[in-house]
Amino acid sequence: MPRIAPGTPEAELPTPCLILDLDALEANLDRMADAARAAGMRLRPHGKMHRSVDLGRAQMARGAVGLCAQTVGEAEVFVAGGIGDVLVTNEVRDPAKLARLATLAAGGARVGLCLDDPAAVAPTGAAAREAGATLDAWIELMCGGRCGVADPAAVAPLAAAIAAEPGLRFAGIHAYEGSAQHLTGDAERGARIATAGERVRAALDALRAAGIDCPQVTGAGTGTWQHEAASGLWTELQCGSYAVMDADYGRIEDPQGQRLDQGWRNALFVLAQVISTPVPGRAVCDAGLKSMSGESGLPLVWGQEGVTATGLSDEHTVLDDPAGALAPGDRLRLIPGHCDPTVNLHDAFVCVRNGVVEAV
Amino acid sequence: MPRIAPGTPEAELPTPCLILDLDALEANLDRMADAARAAGMRLRPHGKMHRSVDLGRAQMARGAVGLCAQTVGEAEVFVAGGIGDVLVTNEVRDPAKLARLATLAAGGARVGLCLDDPAAVAPTGAAAREAGATLDAWIELMCGGRCGVADPAAVAPLAAAIAAEPGLRFAGIHAYEGSAQHLTGDAERGARIATAGERVRAALDALRAAGIDCPQVTGAGTGTWQHEAASGLWTELQCGSYAVMDADYGRIEDPQGQRLDQGWRNALFVLAQVISTPVPGRAVCDAGLKSMSGESGLPLVWGQEGVTATGLSDEHTVLDDPAGALAPGDRLRLIPGHCDPTVNLHDAFVCVRNGVVEAV
Repeated sequence: MPRIAPGTPEAELPTPCLILDLDALEANLDRMADAARAAGMRLRPHGKMHRSVDLGRAQMARGAVGLCAQTVGEAEVFVAGGIGDVLVTNEVRDPAKLARLATLAAGGARVGLCLDDPAAVAPTGAAAREAGATLDAWIELMCGGRCGVADPAAVAPLAAAIAAEPGLRFAGIHAYEGSAQHLTGDAERGARIATAGERVRAALDALRAAGIDCPQVTGAGTGTWQHEAASGLWTELQCGSYAVMDADYGRIEDPQGQRLDQGWRNALFVLAQVISTPVPGRAVCDAGLKSMSGESGLPLVWGQEGVTATGLSDEHTVLDDPAGALAPGDRLRLIPGHCDPTVNLHDAFVCVRNGVVEAV
Repeated sequence: MPRIAPGTPEAELPTPCLILDLDALEANLDRMADAARAAGMRLRPHGKMHRSVDLGRAQMARGAVGLCAQTVGEAEVFVAGGIGDVLVTNEVRDPAKLARLATLAAGGARVGLCLDDPAAVAPTGAAAREAGATLDAWIELMCGGRCGVADPAAVAPLAAAIAAEPGLRFAGIHAYEGSAQHLTGDAERGARIATAGERVRAALDALRAAGIDCPQVTGAGTGTWQHEAASGLWTELQCGSYAVMDADYGRIEDPQGQRLDQGWRNALFVLAQVISTPVPGRAVCDAGLKSMSGESGLPLVWGQEGVTATGLSDEHTVLDDPAGALAPGDRLRLIPGHCDPTVNLHDAFVCVRNGVVEAV
């Protein structure tokens, strides 16, 4: 992609292009920071969505205690960028990756990871000791998801093994109900979090019975955080998508029955250009699966009444345009179906404010 | 990702990692080059799949007349890498992008693009003249797809306008039936190509009636090329996925009723590592939507009898492993659902032969 200079009008950007609307982003960051503060909870936003040191720093400046990362590579980028506390919300079993995490911790950062298997304790502790570091060991509790300790009672012996392992610090429980986040109805999401909460409570009871203190319970996402906050069980929120939103989150309802994008603003767009209007009522634009992830549904067309996406292929989005409003060369902001894997497709955000590039 | 040196065993690669099996790749490249030669057709492989100069050069060395590209940026990379003939199989309407294509052509490469609108002729010609170059103008004929001239008879006046425009050369008809490629049954795909062939024939008749020579008819993909070759209408094949294959193409049947991956070898894999076996019969590995596209279905697990993927999320693939064959730390080769957008997620191929890295 050609170099983009600050001051470039949005209307002159090359397409497709990932743009971040800074006014909308900053409003979202402020809103979540205020909400976490009001709920008396720690906020540790998930950095897997943005993978951006600049965005992470903006979250820290608003009071976040640290960031979540999903991979060791993300954790390395965040720590190198000055984020002093990073939790990898994932199991790490590869000795080479454990050594990389331990090296980060040895450099002075607070670094955590998830465990769900007693067999992981010794090699994780060994990697930390080898580097002369201490790692935060969080126990992942299975909550309708993929990984994690299936039996809440098994959290206690695993925590005891962690506490007994030099090089590890038992940091708490990681309980993230990912499958609840995108359910449309707020009550449905609340029911899932209630079920997860029962499991968290059982794990906390088991820890208490074993005389083990549980420093934190971390979890929650943009779709459910109000339920975790209300439960009195979780102490730390991990929401990530709230910062930019996406089409899929926009569709779900908040506790007041409003669409979630009535409260959070869409800040992330793929800028596209119409390249063909081959038959009446159809427009085709130059952004597809290589610019936007497709697994969570079609993108929305921003600010174009009556224009809807009907297809998404490698390099194209096909639009239904019954009024024939679009012509070749027209530019559109598309709201991606799912923000995380969309951001993953791009090397940089083009940050715009009032239609002009402010930074890249 | 840490630097990977040639000579590294596949079993020591960091995961997730995109690997290309060179023996399988070269067998596929040879097979298609031989088939095109036997059919008396030109081969212009689609470079949108690999986006790799090295792979494109390997195709040229086996007799390809040039490459297809899907974007202006891809065309620039291919020309810079020494590919002297590139066709952008797409409409280009942005004046800045037309200028970039014209600059490539002015540098000595043969550069083509698709048109489907009489209004595109003048600005495309102007861009070419501005650069002192000539561009190959191909007319895209709609074939069940997104873009293209809908009425075959309209190809003749558009070709006449192109021929009359200084700076443009009428190169032929681009007729690609993309929606037929992944249909399971070969007869079903053949029927679609027969329908597209009727449209090509009508366009050729219209050109002949207008006294306009049609130098080439280009199109076809890995799923259908034998039908285009048999039609006597197409002169140039654009297949791309054949070079590496994917899970989705593997499932379809060839004209002999065999799965397509009986003839073409899987050369592209995402190497992953098991990070958790949280409950009996389930294994979770560390490659997901950020390493493999998910819009064409789940990946296949290579060489692991009885292990199947049941879920794909941002960073994870969930596997059903009824026999409990997998343990944390085990490495797996996953065959991605769709090769093109999977390759797009990675910065480099790690090329292996006999389980050892040969190049990156």
